[in-house]
Amino acid sequence: MTKVFNNPVDFKEQMIKGFTAAYSRYVERIPNAAGVMVKGGPTPGKVSVLIGGGSGHYPLFCGLVGKGFAHGAVIGDIFTSPSGEQCYRCGKALDGGAGVVFSYGNYSGDVMNFGMAEMRLEMEGIDVRQVLVTDDVASSADFDSRRGVAGDFFVFKVLGASAWRGDNLDTVEAMGRHANAMTRSFGVAFGGCTIPGQPQPLFTVAQDKMELGLGIHGEPGVETSDLRSASEIAGLLVDKVLSDVPAGAGSKAVVLVNGLGATKYEEMFVMYGDIHKRLAAAGIDLYKPVVGELATSLNMEGCGLTLMWLDSDLQALLDYPTETPAWTNV
Amino acid sequence: MTKVFNNPVDFKEQMIKGFTAAYSRYVERIPNAAGVMVKGGPTPGKVSVLIGGGSGHYPLFCGLVGKGFAHGAVIGDIFTSPSGEQCYRCGKALDGGAGVVFSYGNYSGDVMNFGMAEMRLEMEGIDVRQVLVTDDVASSADFDSRRGVAGDFFVFKVLGASAWRGDNLDTVEAMGRHANAMTRSFGVAFGGCTIPGQPQPLFTVAQDKMELGLGIHGEPGVETSDLRSASEIAGLLVDKVLSDVPAGAGSKAVVLVNGLGATKYEEMFVMYGDIHKRLAAAGIDLYKPVVGELATSLNMEGCGLTLMWLDSDLQALLDYPTETPAWTNV
Repeated sequence: MTKVFNNPVDFKEQMIKGFTAAYSRYVERIPNAAGVMVKGGPTPGKVSVLIGGGSGHYPLFCGLVGKGFAHGAVIGDIFTSPSGEQCYRCGKALDGGAGVVFSYGNYSGDVMNFGMAEMRLEMEGIDVRQVLVTDDVASSADFDSRRGVAGDFFVFKVLGASAWRGDNLDTVEAMGRHANAMTRSFGVAFGGCTIPGQPQPLFTVAQDKMELGLGIHGEPGVETSDLRSASEIAGLLVDKVLSDVPAGAGSKAVVLVNGLGATKYEEMFVMYGDIHKRLAAAGIDLYKPVVGELATSLNMEGCGLTLMWLDSDLQALLDYPTETPAWTNV
Repeated sequence: MTKVFNNPVDFKEQMIKGFTAAYSRYVERIPNAAGVMVKGGPTPGKVSVLIGGGSGHYPLFCGLVGKGFAHGAVIGDIFTSPSGEQCYRCGKALDGGAGVVFSYGNYSGDVMNFGMAEMRLEMEGIDVRQVLVTDDVASSADFDSRRGVAGDFFVFKVLGASAWRGDNLDTVEAMGRHANAMTRSFGVAFGGCTIPGQPQPLFTVAQDKMELGLGIHGEPGVETSDLRSASEIAGLLVDKVLSDVPAGAGSKAVVLVNGLGATKYEEMFVMYGDIHKRLAAAGIDLYKPVVGELATSLNMEGCGLTLMWLDSDLQALLDYPTETPAWTNV
């Protein structure tokens, strides 16, 4: 249940104000837009990466803006795509003269609005590319139709690093597409979340049940099952992700166990022990695992597993140093 | 509600195994003990810092073990102090010949068990100091009787940095005590949490109420009130913390808005905007604010405000680079 808010109508704006006040050492507000950008704005002559989507998923999206990572984020209302106008304004503000890559999870509202912004910017002579994240194996058998979930983190990280090290627009786009092609996620949920000011949760899961493959906005899962043990959930997540190993995958993969909000770290560590063993037994060389909250859905109860299979290109970009409000690596 | 576990009796052990499997690049298991230490163990000739307490508060305690931060953590069961035997084993493993500082939140079980470990180690010729964290303004009018809450993070950070840069035992202890003397917290809760395997929450808060000054293990608050707006909660937190500004405090302070588990980032950013304005209006120069989860209570709904007033000593130690599973700064 979301408990801390003022007027729900102003929730997003107040959130952006609080966020930029707290993290002015990393980010600044994009003037006249619902978005934030790296302090100092785009670098002349370099590609910028604009990420975005609805809010309610922190650290997605604004928490990943900063040196080495995304150059900016456009911010929609809770679980709602930012408008085409806002995507346009943020994209325009981020152009440093070398083009802009838009990247976001594959949801129809986002596709439409970022698409409109791309058209307007192209008409103004700004070269825009789009890299959609489609990591959720539960959402479709067709790769390009899948929605984006926690894999966003890895795709954005690769895109940001490629741009910050000075790659040109074609290369940044290609690296991002390659990262997405190598990324797979599967998640489960144990309970819903409540949008600020709403009396009822967006959806509910019975106390002794779990939803398999549920989306991060409460989209229906692929199956309702009895609640299982941590070990059984670990087995399920590993099986689902490994049921669709990308073509061309090597043996090394970066691993994320992601909490959606109210499934906490200790529970995820208990589950991670089994995940680690199962992935290692499947011949995967686990690189820098992370157990934490990198893509949330307010206080939804649930968690997921994400793997990005690595080659030397992706590993170098993953390791590129970053400093952002929610993620710093050296 | 905690949903992800196997046999609740083995929860802690499975959590430690999962944690060390995920983060073997930072930490390793302390042999024959319920604890972890920085990869490679203590540095010969340097002071070590051992933190600890019950589990259920991640990233407290084990998530803050690594270069520049704590050298080790001893890990109790959920919301339960580690035993004297475990504190002893971990303290002994961490001695690099220059002494060990124990630091933890001020709870009677921890005081007793770390105290027993100190006595045993002193008998073996290992110099041990204790720095208790007593930041929770709500828990007592008497400073030394207060319990420790999110202020743990800042006190541990200062202690760790002082030890890693090579200060001697007297100096590390003095810096830690100074950090604690300059730190104040106050929190509120909107709902309880459930210990793995238990059918009922540890405590409950009515849907339209909040508890002021509640402890991180569900200890009674100082007052039950109607649920308030984000702005009113911000005012309350600031007033309570500023009602007890430490003697000798300057104008600069590092600021943390901490979520207990299920009160999420977006809600805290909405509240942070007001906190920032109110603290600035009170003449405080806000240094590197953080809005996040640095001291949790499983999936408890609630949040708090912590300030550590800074001088040049504390600021330098706060800024000292660290690399740990849950906190990296450059």
